[in-house]
Amino acid sequence: MATIQDVAKHAHVGVGTVSRVLNGKGYVKETTRQKIEASIEALNYTPNEMARNLFFRKCGIVAVIVPEVSHPFFAQFVSAAEKFLCEKGFQTMICNTYYEENYEQRYLEMLKRQKVDGIIFGSHTVLNQSSQYENANRPIVALDRDLGKNIPCVSADHEGGGLMAAEALIRSGCKNVCQFTGFEVDKEISMPFNLRHKVFEEHMKAHNVACRSVYTRWGSMEAEYYQELAEDFLRDYPDADGVFGTDMMIMAVLQSAMAQGKRVPQDLKLVAYDGTCGAGLTYPRITRIEQPITELAKESVRLVVDLINGQPVEFKKTQFQVRLQPGDTTLG
Amino acid sequence: MATIQDVAKHAHVGVGTVSRVLNGKGYVKETTRQKIEASIEALNYTPNEMARNLFFRKCGIVAVIVPEVSHPFFAQFVSAAEKFLCEKGFQTMICNTYYEENYEQRYLEMLKRQKVDGIIFGSHTVLNQSSQYENANRPIVALDRDLGKNIPCVSADHEGGGLMAAEALIRSGCKNVCQFTGFEVDKEISMPFNLRHKVFEEHMKAHNVACRSVYTRWGSMEAEYYQELAEDFLRDYPDADGVFGTDMMIMAVLQSAMAQGKRVPQDLKLVAYDGTCGAGLTYPRITRIEQPITELAKESVRLVVDLINGQPVEFKKTQFQVRLQPGDTTLG
Repeated sequence: MATIQDVAKHAHVGVGTVSRVLNGKGYVKETTRQKIEASIEALNYTPNEMARNLFFRKCGIVAVIVPEVSHPFFAQFVSAAEKFLCEKGFQTMICNTYYEENYEQRYLEMLKRQKVDGIIFGSHTVLNQSSQYENANRPIVALDRDLGKNIPCVSADHEGGGLMAAEALIRSGCKNVCQFTGFEVDKEISMPFNLRHKVFEEHMKAHNVACRSVYTRWGSMEAEYYQELAEDFLRDYPDADGVFGTDMMIMAVLQSAMAQGKRVPQDLKLVAYDGTCGAGLTYPRITRIEQPITELAKESVRLVVDLINGQPVEFKKTQFQVRLQPGDTTLG
Repeated sequence: MATIQDVAKHAHVGVGTVSRVLNGKGYVKETTRQKIEASIEALNYTPNEMARNLFFRKCGIVAVIVPEVSHPFFAQFVSAAEKFLCEKGFQTMICNTYYEENYEQRYLEMLKRQKVDGIIFGSHTVLNQSSQYENANRPIVALDRDLGKNIPCVSADHEGGGLMAAEALIRSGCKNVCQFTGFEVDKEISMPFNLRHKVFEEHMKAHNVACRSVYTRWGSMEAEYYQELAEDFLRDYPDADGVFGTDMMIMAVLQSAMAQGKRVPQDLKLVAYDGTCGAGLTYPRITRIEQPITELAKESVRLVVDLINGQPVEFKKTQFQVRLQPGDTTLG
């Protein structure tokens, strides 16, 4: 396949001149334009998106930074991001942070040294001054965290999701609910995904439903880890009649509750959050709130590639609708 | 932190000479050695593994190529591989092949052009001549496929796993079993993971148990995809009393069978293969055969890094034991 370099060589002009013709930007002498167009035809050159990226990019790599790739939500996000980045001519580098170390400092350095062309931050840890991200002044997109006003933030409508979960449990007649929440990494950087818990709690209060929060640390991707949390929960909150948490957590609560002879949904109602594949395969089917994971990845990739290519990007929060997938762990 | 370059500069010698002292290989004049050792002390230089890698490697990137990162097995493999590569000073690049396109050709080219230092192949598609991998003559490690006698192959003991599954179903009294098998990419390259199906079938025959194979194509990571396969299966094989398949497939069969009022394990016995997190969170608990996913990733990384660093590597098949995790979907 002919490249832009082949066209430039064939037409005896610089790559920049070919680029100006292709993009219709800047002045090019008419005879030069004709020569380039003849070369494009002679070489059967297709100035597709990938080729344009090959021209603009420095190294062709975008880093996707997440807490842990093996977590089903991030596995599906990273997988989709790789697919869309590949379509646009970029390779995908991944990094697990485990919320433990200051990996983002290393990646910001790589970005400065052009070892990567852009970063999608799906995690951040101790680098809690958003100015460090903004000062990098390079292509950065944030998934589910506000890293500064010049950094686009992509997220699902978690407030809507929290409300849907609360309504599903209230409709089912719950009077005494619990929600599993993640920890807050820091106070300075707001993370939209935590909003669902705030909305959930407020909505419960407004309907006079008792609501408690169970904090969980970021854990290992092992069944035993979730089973232990679920068993602790059932022991500590035997009177809970409704639970809201992420897919894996709710799967574990369902398993432990059934093993203890609790009836679902009669004794215990459950709503799971994320929309990953495994949580759709339980019996009874869990009532789930699905994030549009593929859309989140697609938009994150679109934004980071536009930034890399110097295209204008709106620095705003982009929110995607979540979807209630009714199952058999709620009523009504 | 001082680098090997700093030491070389401080001692007024070449980096290669410092390297020979550090590795204890090759001749170095005694006075030079003393000078280098003094510089190492003066600069407080620690010749750790990461620093060694920084010296030997070209770009510090290893590519991990899998059918789909969002598949729980590959999500856990890629996640663990990233962790071990990171510890050894390498970044991880990922590629989904979806068993569709000839991505490995592109990555072999990147390897030749030193855009990546090494590749872990957990997938291959149409590049069915193993000589192409061998002729690359560069650091390549294969997960679960035999890409040539000069390419190390890491896999679980799938024959042992197939036997365990067969024995668990026979012990449970099954007389009429089905197994879900993946497709064969090509006949030329043997893939150890397919051996479990061969052993399973042979063992069933030896025990006069009827055994049928249900072929499945590589599908999307969506609950609906597996649910459809499970419902088709229950319709087409209503008399089956035992099923063996991967985690997601068996979760879907359990869900559909329970929804149809079948009793598990009384009417239908199930054994799942892979050992991913989600399949450990069902009720009843599925009897599972767990691959040591972390060990597979650790060994793959060790081998590819040794190859990159020019260390001697044994070109043999490395097999890791699988483990039967008894659950409540089998008897005895």
